[in-house]
Amino acid sequence: MWEITEESLEAIALGTGILGTGGGFNPYIGLLRAREIIRKYGPVKVLLPEELTDNDKVVCVGGIGAPTVDIEKIRGTDSYTALRAMEDQTNTKATALISGEIGGGNSIEPIIAGAMANLPIVDADGMGRAFPELQMITFFMFGVSHNPTIICDEKGNVSVFPNSIDPVWMEKMSRAVCVQMGSIATWAFAPMTSKEVQDTAIPYTMTLAKKLGESILKSQSNKTDPINAIFDTIPGVILFQGKIVDVERRIVGGFTRGNLSIEGMDTFLGQSMEIDFQNENLIAKISGNTVCTVPDLICIVDTERGEPITTELLRYGFRVSVLGLPAPELLTRPEALAVVGPKAFGYDEDFKPLRVTK
Amino acid sequence: MWEITEESLEAIALGTGILGTGGGFNPYIGLLRAREIIRKYGPVKVLLPEELTDNDKVVCVGGIGAPTVDIEKIRGTDSYTALRAMEDQTNTKATALISGEIGGGNSIEPIIAGAMANLPIVDADGMGRAFPELQMITFFMFGVSHNPTIICDEKGNVSVFPNSIDPVWMEKMSRAVCVQMGSIATWAFAPMTSKEVQDTAIPYTMTLAKKLGESILKSQSNKTDPINAIFDTIPGVILFQGKIVDVERRIVGGFTRGNLSIEGMDTFLGQSMEIDFQNENLIAKISGNTVCTVPDLICIVDTERGEPITTELLRYGFRVSVLGLPAPELLTRPEALAVVGPKAFGYDEDFKPLRVTK
Repeated sequence: MWEITEESLEAIALGTGILGTGGGFNPYIGLLRAREIIRKYGPVKVLLPEELTDNDKVVCVGGIGAPTVDIEKIRGTDSYTALRAMEDQTNTKATALISGEIGGGNSIEPIIAGAMANLPIVDADGMGRAFPELQMITFFMFGVSHNPTIICDEKGNVSVFPNSIDPVWMEKMSRAVCVQMGSIATWAFAPMTSKEVQDTAIPYTMTLAKKLGESILKSQSNKTDPINAIFDTIPGVILFQGKIVDVERRIVGGFTRGNLSIEGMDTFLGQSMEIDFQNENLIAKISGNTVCTVPDLICIVDTERGEPITTELLRYGFRVSVLGLPAPELLTRPEALAVVGPKAFGYDEDFKPLRVTK
Repeated sequence: MWEITEESLEAIALGTGILGTGGGFNPYIGLLRAREIIRKYGPVKVLLPEELTDNDKVVCVGGIGAPTVDIEKIRGTDSYTALRAMEDQTNTKATALISGEIGGGNSIEPIIAGAMANLPIVDADGMGRAFPELQMITFFMFGVSHNPTIICDEKGNVSVFPNSIDPVWMEKMSRAVCVQMGSIATWAFAPMTSKEVQDTAIPYTMTLAKKLGESILKSQSNKTDPINAIFDTIPGVILFQGKIVDVERRIVGGFTRGNLSIEGMDTFLGQSMEIDFQNENLIAKISGNTVCTVPDLICIVDTERGEPITTELLRYGFRVSVLGLPAPELLTRPEALAVVGPKAFGYDEDFKPLRVTK
């Protein structure tokens, strides 16, 4: 057990920003929201997955929508509303909360609801990164029921999907309601048992995010290479370095979709990289050749400071490094690749895991 | 109390087709579905509103979507599914069912669910005609709560809106889910008390539909004028007679939208009528001058036989009479006109009630 205090938020925001691979919602907005809540309600306890007991009921809360909208239509305490609506719907009191995706601002939704409800959060999540759609959560890939699902907004609207025939239908209906709500909304999923969390969540990811952020912050104050600092926590590869020369970005059906071009610099001079995104970075190519795809993490960072550059902030002229980080093992199993591999996003290629040499 | 038998369905389908003012779903498909269910489960009892007692819990069921889709993606027994889902959600056993709109095939949804659940239906509805959107139901205009609302499909997907902030938000979210479900879905609304039904429903509309249909059927077999037969039951006016010369029709956002042109014949020779529709006929103009608008009924019938021609069946060459029938009194009150008057549909004009002289 450990605690998330106001002081730990900066590192967590930075680390979750890297793990967001472009999405999961803006981590700086997340930081500001979490800071205000922790100042008001106090620190939030973090339980390791193995500290959960048989009586625990763990509710997953988070946000759904387009990251480009999230920076204008800021959410308040809706994840707390979603938690209470789920408790009403299932006649269950939650004993702990968990994040659906550790990447980006979505990592802080359980912190907000947890602080307000005086409940601990679990040091784990359902993606180990960020993905754009709700069926892409490991809980559902590995057999936990998605029924019921709650989607609610800041105006007080609540919708419940007590019985969606599968997680893809749950996503379709939730997304449609989210678009009506203004392309940003908040979810809660059915309470999980400790065994369900232990069997299907990606463990220790809040700790990982915090360590990653601390390592980058330290390199920034010591003026050492921030990319080496990232690789010290998660070994990975530099896929590309250069300058962003083009970004195409639009809000479609509750997602931020688009692509960007990077012109190579230094060792990549003369080459160019193309990246497609759907909230998160999906596939990276150099001169038409794929070098990294989902579920491996494609992370765009500011080369000088190692700060993550999320989808909604990409723009012409940024000097960036594109990092490849290997996906958590759970995401590379066949059940997971069927949902989050390149083919699930419409790319006609098989997943070829990154090769990372230390 | 009276009974809907297999024999009465033809007249009911015909009458509800007229009252549908173009929409409310195809009445012939409704007839086929109701016939099969009544053959299997037996006749359905019809209670007059005043026969309801203090213990009654009346659930409204019906369909939402685009009539052009309804004739291809036929619904089954989803209104029964919606009824049971509402009972589960509210922990209440329904004692009777009611139609949200008497117009078109939607009039038969309570008959289907009623036959299967062995429950009576109420001789009343929430529109006295058909309208395209869910907030346009008199129950909600006159203070009955729309929470919770259930929307479900034939695949087994169920969505609940336990708390929409107003009926327009309920419609927006329901429509979005309906579009995902394939632009046709089924609703159930929160159980109503007998007083709520008596105060806010439009009474005796199932009887009205049956009488209207019987009158047309009689004129067809006696070879008398079917339009006079309609006016014998509901006094109205012939707005126009002629030949359909153009129809523009598209499926947009879960509605069938479009407009049609009719070239005048006989006494209307040399003139032309334009009608706009959103599932139902909204406004009729002769040479640019409005002659009838919602909430009055604009009914397009085959001139020879008095058969209603619904939105999805309109096509070039039909010889039609356009009839204007006055709206039920409840729909002409200010609370109702704010929701179903011409301005609510985006037309910059006030409602001018039809003048009917006997």
